[in-house]
Amino acid sequence: MSNPIDFYFDFSSPYGYFAAVEIDKLAAQHGRDVNWHPILLGPIFKALGTNSLVNIPVKGEYSRHDMERTARFHNIFYKAPSHFPIGTQVAARATLWVQQTQPAKAVELIKTLYSAYFTEDIDISVVDNVLRIAADLGIDRNALQAALESPELKDQLRQSTEAAGQAGVFGSPFMIVDGEQFWGFDRFPQLEALLKNGKI
Amino acid sequence: MSNPIDFYFDFSSPYGYFAAVEIDKLAAQHGRDVNWHPILLGPIFKALGTNSLVNIPVKGEYSRHDMERTARFHNIFYKAPSHFPIGTQVAARATLWVQQTQPAKAVELIKTLYSAYFTEDIDISVVDNVLRIAADLGIDRNALQAALESPELKDQLRQSTEAAGQAGVFGSPFMIVDGEQFWGFDRFPQLEALLKNGKI
Repeated sequence: MSNPIDFYFDFSSPYGYFAAVEIDKLAAQHGRDVNWHPILLGPIFKALGTNSLVNIPVKGEYSRHDMERTARFHNIFYKAPSHFPIGTQVAARATLWVQQTQPAKAVELIKTLYSAYFTEDIDISVVDNVLRIAADLGIDRNALQAALESPELKDQLRQSTEAAGQAGVFGSPFMIVDGEQFWGFDRFPQLEALLKNGKI
Repeated sequence: MSNPIDFYFDFSSPYGYFAAVEIDKLAAQHGRDVNWHPILLGPIFKALGTNSLVNIPVKGEYSRHDMERTARFHNIFYKAPSHFPIGTQVAARATLWVQQTQPAKAVELIKTLYSAYFTEDIDISVVDNVLRIAADLGIDRNALQAALESPELKDQLRQSTEAAGQAGVFGSPFMIVDGEQFWGFDRFPQLEALLKNGKI
């Protein structure tokens, strides 16, 4: 098996959601695995002095329209959430914990959280919502709840977000494979060319 | 003939250059004309509190790589200029003047200026370079030079940049057609879908 695709995402990123829907198929077609890295864009934006697209006048309005249009264009079901953007610490920490304790369930959890937020308008910044979604997948609610309150897990997310920033990640989705970096769902055609041809 | 495509661009924008290379073919395939609008991103960025991609740490480095990769991916000849980004008032004003006085030469001038900057490393912020390029296309050098110094032409560029901002333009390239806005060369597939299907 060739190198995996490192896939960095923030749970509040619609383009991250679109990419999360599509990445497994693209990777499988080219014999690659996907390493899923939940991160928080907040600290990364702060370090770079940038901001979320949607918080910029004019550009923000355009982006909201572009998100809906991009979903239609790719036949991905998408419903703009009432609360957006949101803090995604809880969802990201839950993912990290499940990746470590029940790795077989981690990708399903990621996709279910994303889809809850971007198709069912479930606010995944709310701890109870994350716990319920996890429990529905057979993850122990009490154990997860305890983990979410532990300083160790908070530290881990801080560290993995820092590591992502050091790897050059500054947005979501962000893919790194064979030393090449790709920012944005709209770079999937170029990512695909790399996977297909071994270079780009 | 259906509505034309309003095509907004800054001469310092590599993605604007890529789009300028491709837009005529795309438009012609779908029976559309292109209205070329040279603008200055500087005042627009200032009004929105945004910045050029390449001036942001980390993101800037990525972008420079992405520009080269995007050119390769689309088989567009591109050589990163030594001076980048540059002020593009002179090139934009020259374009406005030629659009008004010799419209038949305007598109050729735009493409020649873009290609001088992004394939031959000719600094088109330098008046003499713009005058020489225009003269090579049969445009009267002295008349253009006089026009470039006139306050009227400066005002016109200020006004057309303002009008672009009021139309929602915040980057380059930026296309507006049938009331739909598309930002970026990477939205050409969606622009094409609109032109093909009449909706998106």
